[in-house]
Amino acid sequence: MSETLLCPRNLAFELYEVLDAEALTRRARFADHSRETFDAALGTARQIAQKYFAPHNRTSDEHEPLYQNGEAVLIPEVKPAVDAFIEAGFHNAQRSFEDGGMQLPNLLSRACFAHFQSANIATSSYPMLTMGAAHLIETFGSDDQKQRFLQPMIEGRYFGTMALTEPHAGSSLSDIRTRAEPAGDGSYRLKGNKIFISGGDHPLSENIVHMVLAKLPDAPPGVKGISLFIVPKFLINDDGSLGPRNDVLLAGLFHKMGWRGTTSTALNFGDNGNCVGYLVGEPHKGLAYMFQMMNEARIGVGMGAIMLGYAGYLYSLNYARERPQGRLPDGKDPASAQVPIIEHTDVKRMLLMQKAYVEGAFDLGLYSARLVDDQHTATNEEERRNAGELLDLLTPIVKSWPSEFCLKANELAIQILGGHGYTREYPVEQFYRDNRLNPIHEGTHGIQSLDLLGRKLMQNNGAGLQQLLGLIQDCCQRAAAHEALAPLRQPLEQHVAQLTRVTQALLGDLMAGKINQALANSALYLKVFGHAVIGWRWLEQALRAEHGLTDGNPADADFYRGKLQAARYFLTWEVLGCQPELTLLEARDDTCLNMQEGWF
Amino acid sequence: MSETLLCPRNLAFELYEVLDAEALTRRARFADHSRETFDAALGTARQIAQKYFAPHNRTSDEHEPLYQNGEAVLIPEVKPAVDAFIEAGFHNAQRSFEDGGMQLPNLLSRACFAHFQSANIATSSYPMLTMGAAHLIETFGSDDQKQRFLQPMIEGRYFGTMALTEPHAGSSLSDIRTRAEPAGDGSYRLKGNKIFISGGDHPLSENIVHMVLAKLPDAPPGVKGISLFIVPKFLINDDGSLGPRNDVLLAGLFHKMGWRGTTSTALNFGDNGNCVGYLVGEPHKGLAYMFQMMNEARIGVGMGAIMLGYAGYLYSLNYARERPQGRLPDGKDPASAQVPIIEHTDVKRMLLMQKAYVEGAFDLGLYSARLVDDQHTATNEEERRNAGELLDLLTPIVKSWPSEFCLKANELAIQILGGHGYTREYPVEQFYRDNRLNPIHEGTHGIQSLDLLGRKLMQNNGAGLQQLLGLIQDCCQRAAAHEALAPLRQPLEQHVAQLTRVTQALLGDLMAGKINQALANSALYLKVFGHAVIGWRWLEQALRAEHGLTDGNPADADFYRGKLQAARYFLTWEVLGCQPELTLLEARDDTCLNMQEGWF
Repeated sequence: MSETLLCPRNLAFELYEVLDAEALTRRARFADHSRETFDAALGTARQIAQKYFAPHNRTSDEHEPLYQNGEAVLIPEVKPAVDAFIEAGFHNAQRSFEDGGMQLPNLLSRACFAHFQSANIATSSYPMLTMGAAHLIETFGSDDQKQRFLQPMIEGRYFGTMALTEPHAGSSLSDIRTRAEPAGDGSYRLKGNKIFISGGDHPLSENIVHMVLAKLPDAPPGVKGISLFIVPKFLINDDGSLGPRNDVLLAGLFHKMGWRGTTSTALNFGDNGNCVGYLVGEPHKGLAYMFQMMNEARIGVGMGAIMLGYAGYLYSLNYARERPQGRLPDGKDPASAQVPIIEHTDVKRMLLMQKAYVEGAFDLGLYSARLVDDQHTATNEEERRNAGELLDLLTPIVKSWPSEFCLKANELAIQILGGHGYTREYPVEQFYRDNRLNPIHEGTHGIQSLDLLGRKLMQNNGAGLQQLLGLIQDCCQRAAAHEALAPLRQPLEQHVAQLTRVTQALLGDLMAGKINQALANSALYLKVFGHAVIGWRWLEQALRAEHGLTDGNPADADFYRGKLQAARYFLTWEVLGCQPELTLLEARDDTCLNMQEGWF
Repeated sequence: MSETLLCPRNLAFELYEVLDAEALTRRARFADHSRETFDAALGTARQIAQKYFAPHNRTSDEHEPLYQNGEAVLIPEVKPAVDAFIEAGFHNAQRSFEDGGMQLPNLLSRACFAHFQSANIATSSYPMLTMGAAHLIETFGSDDQKQRFLQPMIEGRYFGTMALTEPHAGSSLSDIRTRAEPAGDGSYRLKGNKIFISGGDHPLSENIVHMVLAKLPDAPPGVKGISLFIVPKFLINDDGSLGPRNDVLLAGLFHKMGWRGTTSTALNFGDNGNCVGYLVGEPHKGLAYMFQMMNEARIGVGMGAIMLGYAGYLYSLNYARERPQGRLPDGKDPASAQVPIIEHTDVKRMLLMQKAYVEGAFDLGLYSARLVDDQHTATNEEERRNAGELLDLLTPIVKSWPSEFCLKANELAIQILGGHGYTREYPVEQFYRDNRLNPIHEGTHGIQSLDLLGRKLMQNNGAGLQQLLGLIQDCCQRAAAHEALAPLRQPLEQHVAQLTRVTQALLGDLMAGKINQALANSALYLKVFGHAVIGWRWLEQALRAEHGLTDGNPADADFYRGKLQAARYFLTWEVLGCQPELTLLEARDDTCLNMQEGWF
């Protein structure tokens, strides 16, 4: 499996050539870091991922968690893996040295974590959820809550979850029914049912801290009446020791298509009337708080989708190099030797598509992580605000684009392996099955498209959008200095010009109150917007590759040529390929909007 | 599961409104048939599919065949199902009355069989393979072979397989290594290994008749040196009773992503030097013979892909009608009731796409079956020849288009069910996993694209292509009489005009010897050609729907309106959406061709 764990050369390209990770070490918070300490952290992540995470990736798919006596039972390989992760301190990668953390930039933390996602997406979910839950308490919890719940999470003794979805409401959080009644002692008693709670039960930690959305008795209707509660699996005594079991019952496990190593649970809160919870922050502000965790999780989902796509790409690339079969169309002499299938143009196409999808998305994923750093540690406030606004705008793309196109990459990886790819004797079919979750959880594709078109574009008076357009324009201007890049730059310029017109028109419709019409083809909009973003990132990569060919190590020439060819593929096949969607959007096509239920 | 078994109204629309199945009853061979006998056969198929096939579809996915003591062991539900199928005579649906058959047209036989594929693709594979193998012996076997092997297959006592693929060669049949030595008594001794042989072992029949490709000692190299052999699992005594076990060993089973109920086997022929085989027809002509079975199987694969897509569509449609969630964008009052998700435009889009894919492909699949009938029973020779030539041209489309787009439909069905769709508690994820095989077996997508562009277009001096273009033109002319159809007709006319130019240019390149260049983007060509074909079939359906709205039962108005809207979707979104691919083909884009292995 080790050959599917990220390409080190490409990781270095992203960190040190495209995203200038070393510049971060000039900021006060990261002054003790250097490229050497970054690489050491990455090396450790790679080593632990290879040693503890990769070996049981297939095993946990074949032996999914079992429901026994009200608890979830996992295969024994999972705990040593998360223990090694915690032992190495990756759950505190971004925390300050004084809190026992590595004080790494978000960019490096994400890059380290990518190795675990690549090696074993299911096992990596447990620490990922815990890191999100811990950050939520860190930001919005009281001192007592931090002492009681956050501290053991930092110590790696407690794990966490996010509990949003309910059976009758799915994506519609406005309709959740879980109730929280004040108990008179400052705590609350919760009652309700949640489903699809990842990591909702497991034997990996002393305790599990559920971050639960519920409604107070006086809550206004809808999303403005949602509050956030800490609901631990075990209550905690004042001395920090574990108290009795809380009234949170594991009602059952879901049996998934993939991602099977992560328990997906149905949890009953308060079946016996005694589920203790603690309000986080102020009443009725729970959804706003939870969005911090959800936004982090959305970037995490995007990164997971990328790493699954990447793993399939690397595996199928290696296979295509080693597998001889057939001959080129113009050389059919049966006495000649068969050629490796990578020589067949259609196989090259499927590899080039995968490369364009996964390396384009990987660049965007790390770029977003870099924005998180800028949001928190850029030297002036304007830069920090800009980074936050741009990140808000890009989050639906970071979540959804890889979920769609890196999944497509996995489908192509299966195809390259042919009959073998369809068997469970090879890993690529599992990558597909695992990745199929990503367009669904943390907000479906449809939800992301409405978030982008209906909310994010106009946020802060469109400041994020203006920034993005400015960045793309700047990139095109730099690219204009390279004649060789003209065939890559022009499609992007053309696409963005048309996208800008379409965007203005749709926003105009929204402001004129034509809401259902303007949002009708939001899925198309999500695609063309995402392609603009990934096209821009590919032009940035191509620019770096041009510099690399001129000034870089000659031994890297093939690497840079591959970047240029993938950029060419993406910009001329994919970005120019968005023309039909742009035309439909411009025409406000109403084919789907006007379809009637009775006509199906 | 019954709600996923084909839509009876749409089946009747296809058979009796679009394809005029009743006209077949005016041919001598089908003179004893009528719409009533057709419907009776369809009703029986539906009943048996529901009673015996559907109930164990999930069970056979969960309990795949086991390898025990050199044999494949299946769950007990499979045998009663295939027994009921045989008992009802569906394996002989097309055979003459005098041979104990139903003497049904191919169109009706395919339509009946579609029910079994829809209910349980894995179990339906055993009879499908048997029917193909029997037809092969029927066409090319000697009288003795017919007596010995075909007769028990007709009686339902023996099953069959096709054994082509070898471990080192995959799609490259030219490189198979299995050898057949004359034994001196008219029989042969085979030696070699085959993989991915579906139905290669099972306990469903007294005997298994393998149709095996192998090379004689004096064989010329390549595909012109391949011969076809009958290799039974058990030898047969002269009195027809079973003799000793032949030297065909089940080396193992493959463990697949889906389609798990069908054994996929590795077979060793002649490990002990005593594998008896019988040459079918003349030496070195085996591949040509096998193509009869492969072409039937390719249509069968296409129909299987369609039925899986169709089942997912019907399931997700039903779910979308019943599942309330959220509110429309312009009606966010949380006090209002949640709406069924079918009211969300993006869900309508995913349903409309599925409808367009599966009903478009279903029409093409049955149209092809109708061509088989014309090939054999049309009243004059020219019609028969025309039908055969058109069918040859369309076969790669019938195989590959549904494998790609009905698979895409399955992906959309999962998305509509959201988190539930991702669990094995619902059937849609299995439909996807089952369907993922179809772009691989019976010739991968890449093989089909080369077959179309490199072979089929120019076959018989392009007679099939000229026919197809004529049929599309005729359809457009009829559509021109309906003003309402102009927005559907014009995209098709535009597309076909451009496709024709591209085709001439590529064929010109091929004739000029620029073979690798001309075939480089064959995958794009396969898509745009397939979209032309399905677009044409949708325009035909739209024409019938227009007639139905004018002259048909008013109670069917919504059905016809749905047809028109799906046709509109397909022609304006999908067919016009091929513009970028046509542009790349016209430009002879060489991005993939020029990609170098070292650049990856």
